Amino acid sequence: MKRTLQLAMVGGGEGAFIGAIHRAAAALDGDWRLVAGAFSSDPARNRRSGDMLGIAPARTYASLEALLAAESALPEAERVDAVSIVTPNHLHAPMAIAALDAGFHVFCEKPMALSTVEAQEIAQAAARSGRHFALAFTYSGYPLIEEARARVARGDFGKVRLVQVEYSQGWLSQPIDRDGNKQAEWRTDPARAGLGGCLGDIGTHAFHLAEHVSGLRVDQLCADLATHVPGRQLDDDVSVLLRLDNGARGVLKATQVAAGDENGLKLRIHGEAGGLEWSQMEPNSLVLRWLDRPMETVRSGGPGLAPSTLQRLRTPAGHPEGYIEAFANLYRAFAARILGDAPGPDDAFPSVAAGLRTMAFVESVVANARSDSKWTQLAVTAGS
Amino acid sequence: MKRTLQLAMVGGGEGAFIGAIHRAAAALDGDWRLVAGAFSSDPARNRRSGDMLGIAPARTYASLEALLAAESALPEAERVDAVSIVTPNHLHAPMAIAALDAGFHVFCEKPMALSTVEAQEIAQAAARSGRHFALAFTYSGYPLIEEARARVARGDFGKVRLVQVEYSQGWLSQPIDRDGNKQAEWRTDPARAGLGGCLGDIGTHAFHLAEHVSGLRVDQLCADLATHVPGRQLDDDVSVLLRLDNGARGVLKATQVAAGDENGLKLRIHGEAGGLEWSQMEPNSLVLRWLDRPMETVRSGGPGLAPSTLQRLRTPAGHPEGYIEAFANLYRAFAARILGDAPGPDDAFPSVAAGLRTMAFVESVVANARSDSKWTQLAVTAGS
Amino acid sequence: MKRTLQLAMVGGGEGAFIGAIHRAAAALDGDWRLVAGAFSSDPARNRRSGDMLGIAPARTYASLEALLAAESALPEAERVDAVSIVTPNHLHAPMAIAALDAGFHVFCEKPMALSTVEAQEIAQAAARSGRHFALAFTYSGYPLIEEARARVARGDFGKVRLVQVEYSQGWLSQPIDRDGNKQAEWRTDPARAGLGGCLGDIGTHAFHLAEHVSGLRVDQLCADLATHVPGRQLDDDVSVLLRLDNGARGVLKATQVAAGDENGLKLRIHGEAGGLEWSQMEPNSLVLRWLDRPMETVRSGGPGLAPSTLQRLRTPAGHPEGYIEAFANLYRAFAARILGDAPGPDDAFPSVAAGLRTMAFVESVVANARSDSKWTQLAVTAGS
Amino acid sequence: MKRTLQLAMVGGGEGAFIGAIHRAAAALDGDWRLVAGAFSSDPARNRRSGDMLGIAPARTYASLEALLAAESALPEAERVDAVSIVTPNHLHAPMAIAALDAGFHVFCEKPMALSTVEAQEIAQAAARSGRHFALAFTYSGYPLIEEARARVARGDFGKVRLVQVEYSQGWLSQPIDRDGNKQAEWRTDPARAGLGGCLGDIGTHAFHLAEHVSGLRVDQLCADLATHVPGRQLDDDVSVLLRLDNGARGVLKATQVAAGDENGLKLRIHGEAGGLEWSQMEPNSLVLRWLDRPMETVRSGGPGLAPSTLQRLRTPAGHPEGYIEAFANLYRAFAARILGDAPGPDDAFPSVAAGLRTMAFVESVVANARSDSKWTQLAVTAGS
Repeated sequence: MKRTLQLAMVGGGEGAFIGAIHRAAAALDGDWRLVAGAFSSDPARNRRSGDMLGIAPARTYASLEALLAAESALPEAERVDAVSIVTPNHLHAPMAIAALDAGFHVFCEKPMALSTVEAQEIAQAAARSGRHFALAFTYSGYPLIEEARARVARGDFGKVRLVQVEYSQGWLSQPIDRDGNKQAEWRTDPARAGLGGCLGDIGTHAFHLAEHVSGLRVDQLCADLATHVPGRQLDDDVSVLLRLDNGARGVLKATQVAAGDENGLKLRIHGEAGGLEWSQMEPNSLVLRWLDRPMETVRSGGPGLAPSTLQRLRTPAGHPEGYIEAFANLYRAFAARILGDAPGPDDAFPSVAAGLRTMAFVESVVANARSDSKWTQLAVTAGS
Repeated sequence: MKRTLQLAMVGGGEGAFIGAIHRAAAALDGDWRLVAGAFSSDPARNRRSGDMLGIAPARTYASLEALLAAESALPEAERVDAVSIVTPNHLHAPMAIAALDAGFHVFCEKPMALSTVEAQEIAQAAARSGRHFALAFTYSGYPLIEEARARVARGDFGKVRLVQVEYSQGWLSQPIDRDGNKQAEWRTDPARAGLGGCLGDIGTHAFHLAEHVSGLRVDQLCADLATHVPGRQLDDDVSVLLRLDNGARGVLKATQVAAGDENGLKLRIHGEAGGLEWSQMEPNSLVLRWLDRPMETVRSGGPGLAPSTLQRLRTPAGHPEGYIEAFANLYRAFAARILGDAPGPDDAFPSVAAGLRTMAFVESVVANARSDSKWTQLAVTAGS
Repeated sequence: MKRTLQLAMVGGGEGAFIGAIHRAAAALDGDWRLVAGAFSSDPARNRRSGDMLGIAPARTYASLEALLAAESALPEAERVDAVSIVTPNHLHAPMAIAALDAGFHVFCEKPMALSTVEAQEIAQAAARSGRHFALAFTYSGYPLIEEARARVARGDFGKVRLVQVEYSQGWLSQPIDRDGNKQAEWRTDPARAGLGGCLGDIGTHAFHLAEHVSGLRVDQLCADLATHVPGRQLDDDVSVLLRLDNGARGVLKATQVAAGDENGLKLRIHGEAGGLEWSQMEPNSLVLRWLDRPMETVRSGGPGLAPSTLQRLRTPAGHPEGYIEAFANLYRAFAARILGDAPGPDDAFPSVAAGLRTMAFVESVVANARSDSKWTQLAVTAGS
Repeated sequence: MKRTLQLAMVGGGEGAFIGAIHRAAAALDGDWRLVAGAFSSDPARNRRSGDMLGIAPARTYASLEALLAAESALPEAERVDAVSIVTPNHLHAPMAIAALDAGFHVFCEKPMALSTVEAQEIAQAAARSGRHFALAFTYSGYPLIEEARARVARGDFGKVRLVQVEYSQGWLSQPIDRDGNKQAEWRTDPARAGLGGCLGDIGTHAFHLAEHVSGLRVDQLCADLATHVPGRQLDDDVSVLLRLDNGARGVLKATQVAAGDENGLKLRIHGEAGGLEWSQMEPNSLVLRWLDRPMETVRSGGPGLAPSTLQRLRTPAGHPEGYIEAFANLYRAFAARILGDAPGPDDAFPSVAAGLRTMAFVESVVANARSDSKWTQLAVTAGS
């Protein structure tokens, strides 16, 4: 009989957006059951959240420390298998390290940490604990992103020449960070968000997707960061020219002040023979254009998909899957890895390597944007 | 602490499509936990299915009868709350009646039954048992279908004049029903599917959606049924002219031989001042057109939504929701009704009334198609 | 040196819509030069129109009769080659017959005439005069309509099973015909428009396109006509079930009360192996769907086009062509036929045969809509 | 009676693409009549082109010099009013200067010249001759580009923050410039194309459109130029970060190696309150997104258009206009200016000012791309 893994969550109490998504994603396939949590540092809010989620009061903990201590003390068959960390950025590293060191697998929100140094420390904790670490670069869980990746990798388009990625949101167009919007507040606060505002929050998603699908690595970059809303401390608008390691060129654009835009993540890759285009807001279509034959639209569930794409699909063609299903693909791959029945590729879910590169990206962009020289090398330096 | 309801499933073993969707939909919000089932009449397949789903062997039953008997014998707090029926059509009525009479709530696949007579019997069983009956007209669970319904109801478009609904699939374009495709096999077999082929399978969805959103009732219809694939016994293509009870006119087109089409359910309604268009394959947009101002696209999670739409959404704008989320809205409303905390409208999920009308639609279309006279009245006759 | 043909126009003075389109279409390729006309029965308006169009006062005639008389009296090299008739429907037949009998080629607006009888009379006049007669079923001039036709004809989709055509406008949603809108006025007046309102105005376009592209003939039809705007004398909404001569089934929907709709002409045809979809409002894409491979979008100017499509294109891929260019393709084919250098297919532009069938369609729909019996045969009866 | 202007053309003989477009655009509204030309330096080709176009042999000249001499000698009422220059770039300046100095108005292909110095010389010739000079930045002729410009100018979106423009083609993905494709050959030859390859050919279009619609001026830029096809001498791929004079940020991407892309010119502008998006391949829709209300799609011919947009439209809503119509809007504005009946804005067609800025853009991008410093100022220096 299949074993359902047990999950604990840190953060994600009442009113938080991303915690609810993690819970739905974990529940979708029946692989996980949420049984414990420390949902808020506010005791009343923590309790209400636990109640609302059907968590036993005894496993609704006051803090991550309490959670780790109590769960570690349970018999192995009863204690949680993994901890999901859905807090603001500055807590990712200390919490992930504590959970890994306590012997729990960790599913962590992005960006991985506040700095490359912190990210290296998580990497070391994962290595010494032997526990798995998953990072919520959700968009890589979409089936047609896998299709795109597989097609680039098998050479459908020939040598890649162009990589264009954009992530366009508008919700920070007004100074809502000073008007009580909690989501906006911490994302624009350097102490909690880190070096990058829009850059860390969604620029990292764009960067990860571009490298993940193209199979290339960004070698050099040249960036412009802007803060359009007066009084804001971090960037809300990011433009980056990319040079990739095979000679391809790229542009990465991320913004949170494109007023009226929703969640416009879009990826285009062109090679010598054709190109692909994918847009997160219509995720069940992948458009392929060719030099010598008509444009094709590959569809979720339709003919012509790679086996690795099919594994990520739950519905037949024409029954749209969305964001939660993409997220659930990461939780499912994470479960499979833990249960040992995932002999698949190392990148079935984003992990330490992806996290280190995205942190290096954030730091390189900030360094370049502050400098007068044109190109900055992007390199992940080995931890000490 | 929130109570998680317990669910049993009949049918939906290995390889079945719709059972897996029901399970995902029920799991998504944490309202339901699948704990029992009779997944297949084949004992080995039944056992494997239960194992794969993490169901305890003791609650993997050989038949619905066994399930009802054993669960009824459990203490109230332990027994399942509801039974999901995901079998071919001919089993809906006997199973639903048995489950209702045994005191369980029922979530049943569509079409409701093989005939209006059977449907009336289910209605009577629901009435006498006092149990809730939900019918899987899934598409009415989409948030923007609720938005469309709410806008028509509040008169945004003025008096409705035109209702156009189409449901276009292509998967039965070849005689796969004779080549071992189980899904195709029973759907084209009168003994298991009923009077209608395409008509019962997806024509009923189209009909339900048209009436649900327009708030109108079909008064008269004129139909053409075709069977394009040689040797097939039931219709695979349906065309119907509609006259609605306020004088509006409509066209309903359903087909399963539109080769290459996926799951093209599309609804258009026009009134005196403007119109709406919704397409299931891009469910997060609702297009509104107006006589006197630019076309608008209302988006899931975006500005301008009715409160009843917002209740059906899980993600912010631009994070697409899909078919499973729509389905989950029905399971959530069903749970809320059972738990007694749903003071909402009677049509939060499709139930007996919707089922009776769709069965009357099937019978009227078949009668009209066989006749030389032009118009047939559609009427739900009261049960005896 | 290429000869530019000389054109006269009847109707199409100041404020008329379609006259200006004919002039632009005729001018586009340099095949035609407008040199004469009788633009309005109002003398002042006629003169102003001629002036505005740069027509010499001597060739701005008071009536078609005057025009035919005067032009016939000119030396052959100076007189006009053809007459474009862009008046309300009731004038088509008398004017076309007069012009043909006077020895001029005729390019006539649709519908051809008020009745089949009138249409037969035009046919006879064309036959006895030996002059060419073109009918403005403009949409058949679109390059990708030719591509669709060619692909159906060469069997890309196998035997055709489904033909769906719709033409959805909203501009007659309000009683503007009684508020001084001249375009609306005559189109809703039986004396000037004929038996059909929406049916004659745009239903004929839809019917022509469906037969033209499918290569099939409608054998039987079953129709519902409605008049939604109170006080209007002719139909403003048309719904027709079609049975085609190879056994295919179809639906034709035309309406002018779909409030907010612009000019939504859309054609879908499905065969055993796949289907096509074309929408007039995005005319440079032709969508092909297949049972066994991804959806393709064939594009104006892109790879994979039939030679007969390429002949109808003026710009490279991605430079959109539109309605005027489609219209110009008819004027170009008409010129080529007159100049004798068009050895092409008989249907390079719509002519007498298309006109007769569309008139038979109008009469059959009206007869069926008034009857209680379900199916009416559509047949073009030979003239006496 | 309206006067039809007479046009001569230099270049644009058999097989050339853009000459035919100029001719169709000039003919469309009946404002211009092509009566003379020097279509090719090859005598036989020149003669054949004249014949094919219906030009009298006497006015089919061997060269521009011959044309200017002979036409100048004609009585004023007979000689051509303007000369269209549709040759490769290196001939623009000498030809335009000669034609202006001979007293003819000039409609010139873009880019204006090989350098800012040459462009200044044209500007001086226009000034001293008092003749009008139009530049074929065709895309600014689209009606909905005017709508976009008007809406930005009247402040619909508030202060502009983001300008994103891209022009993506794929036709130079292979080394067709060495395989006999004449269009490709001269465009990749520095002697005939100038400093920029893709940059001059389409980068200038993108730049012009961005400034034209935003009403802003690019202040600083940072660029990366690439040549992806081995052996090619000029850039085929352009990426530029922009800083505009009001503090807005921008990205300009132009490429001719996006294999499979057709003519993907797309503009997005966002201000504090909302944003707009326009795509040349679907030019009859302008998408507007807002912080606080649903997305709108403004349509050619539909409700809500600015008066200056309506003047650029020929057809009612839903009858698509395209590239030739946009081009014709420039020819119409040019004619109106010449005839003195155009009291409208100075930018009804692109002229000297637009030309000078685009040449400065080309030179600044090339300078920046060759440099290690990040930002280059873009400034039009006054001619000597």
